[in-house]
Amino acid sequence: MNITLDEVANELLKHDNILIISHMNPDGDTLGSAFALYHALKKIGKHVKVDCSDDIPKDFIFLSDGYLTDNFKEDFVVTVDTAAKQLFGIKLDSYKNKVDISIDHHKSNELYAKKNYIDETATATCQMIYDVINSMNIEFDAQIADCIYTGITTDSGCYKYSNTSAKTHIIAAKMFEYGANYSFINKKLFDTKSKSQLIAEQNAISSLKYLFNDRVAIISITQKMIEDNNTQESDFVSVSSLPRMIEGIEIGITIKEKKDGTHKISVRTNDLYDASQICSMFGGGGHKKAAGCLIEQDYDKTFDMLISAIESIIV
Amino acid sequence: MNITLDEVANELLKHDNILIISHMNPDGDTLGSAFALYHALKKIGKHVKVDCSDDIPKDFIFLSDGYLTDNFKEDFVVTVDTAAKQLFGIKLDSYKNKVDISIDHHKSNELYAKKNYIDETATATCQMIYDVINSMNIEFDAQIADCIYTGITTDSGCYKYSNTSAKTHIIAAKMFEYGANYSFINKKLFDTKSKSQLIAEQNAISSLKYLFNDRVAIISITQKMIEDNNTQESDFVSVSSLPRMIEGIEIGITIKEKKDGTHKISVRTNDLYDASQICSMFGGGGHKKAAGCLIEQDYDKTFDMLISAIESIIV
Repeated sequence: MNITLDEVANELLKHDNILIISHMNPDGDTLGSAFALYHALKKIGKHVKVDCSDDIPKDFIFLSDGYLTDNFKEDFVVTVDTAAKQLFGIKLDSYKNKVDISIDHHKSNELYAKKNYIDETATATCQMIYDVINSMNIEFDAQIADCIYTGITTDSGCYKYSNTSAKTHIIAAKMFEYGANYSFINKKLFDTKSKSQLIAEQNAISSLKYLFNDRVAIISITQKMIEDNNTQESDFVSVSSLPRMIEGIEIGITIKEKKDGTHKISVRTNDLYDASQICSMFGGGGHKKAAGCLIEQDYDKTFDMLISAIESIIV
Repeated sequence: MNITLDEVANELLKHDNILIISHMNPDGDTLGSAFALYHALKKIGKHVKVDCSDDIPKDFIFLSDGYLTDNFKEDFVVTVDTAAKQLFGIKLDSYKNKVDISIDHHKSNELYAKKNYIDETATATCQMIYDVINSMNIEFDAQIADCIYTGITTDSGCYKYSNTSAKTHIIAAKMFEYGANYSFINKKLFDTKSKSQLIAEQNAISSLKYLFNDRVAIISITQKMIEDNNTQESDFVSVSSLPRMIEGIEIGITIKEKKDGTHKISVRTNDLYDASQICSMFGGGGHKKAAGCLIEQDYDKTFDMLISAIESIIV
């Protein structure tokens, strides 16, 4: 059942003990959405809890400033930015059939909740949360502004991606006016690299393979590469955006070996191809231009499977 | 003499043969400003010429789409985003004492023009040009929107830098509504690297030196490095933003050897230090967080002079 913005606002206003769930491996949009809603609902006296199967990455801990765990039995469960049941993660798996409202901007949302508020035209779920907070007539403050700003800047690729809209910029301008610490947030999210991230990048660049007449670029990260350079897996997260950046590349792929020898795949595409189409062949998913999947095979087999998948769609 | 926005608009409306000058080594803001003004003034029947001492870099040629050289003797000269006489370049040097209006957002503007319209709080000169076009009551279109958007996105570091304001986002939103091709522009400006730029980056990273307890990072680019890797000087332009990105770095410096063995210096700072203060010690200048200068010395002497300069200001 799909519901309207006003219905979402009314449902939230009607309940007093609200659990907000973020997806596993949380990013700026799911956490920005969860904490914006948390801070807003707390302002009107609700009991609210934010939960996630994984720890909050250190770059996003500032979103939870002032967060207090309320001890209560939830009477209402909301998920934010969580498109699929498999994204609840182990810790929160038991909630996957108990969600009252799912607020999400993913086209692929599985509509697992009792009521779904889905807008695939929204740049970020935070853009929808902005509307929800407005619709509840709760006043914004600098803390809520930080959360909303973080979500929209994360999912719009800092206003660069084609999913960005005039509305994204208008909300950003409003968040400035409410005091969002945009310079701090952007520096943290987009303009800071650790020494080991730079080393990771150097290694990623040297692993680049160009295929299909230089239309496809593949980066391969091995466990040995990670260990030999005293880097960590997390240092390699940002390299997945590298291959698509290369002039002329239409499909950019990053193959990252997991500790068990299987592989995590990130696919980034330009306007011509659908990354989620490629990843769905392996049980994964995501957005049109950025998607991911797992391939439980060794490197050579993984590589071959990916090449076949690309061959089947590239024109 | 400083003038108001309305006076700028009136002066432009009063003249019919207008020469618009961009600064040498032109960037997105000076070219966006020049062509936004060109396209706008052409719409109301003026003769307009855009000129620059250097060629338009290929990434910005789209700004001049539809540009036609008008043959006329200018009766009015405007500079955009051009803070100093030395930035006119060789070809246009003879104009430096003949400028009617300088429109610029640099604090360091030398006020060389007969009338100066300077607003150091503007994120980009394009933000001022947006006001000028509005003030002249000229209607925006997609082409003007592309120019304005390019300038503000360039000078705000794609909305990341601390000079960004709510107004920057509001103008961006308006440019979306007028049809700016933001996805194309941002991909071109921020998300595209050639293979040789990646190789340049790899080399730049391996040249990194950390000094002053890891608060200063220095990248050194030599002519040999450029030649050995089949790269070009232009491939190294973007690396100057790398050192400041590194966690904990307060001053990031790039030393680039010129063909004559002297050195071009780029300085990028965080909130604590003033890059233009460092560069002004060597006759250069720029903004608080990004500045440049030339040091006509060999590498060792250049390096030592920079270290002394940093020593004199670092606390």
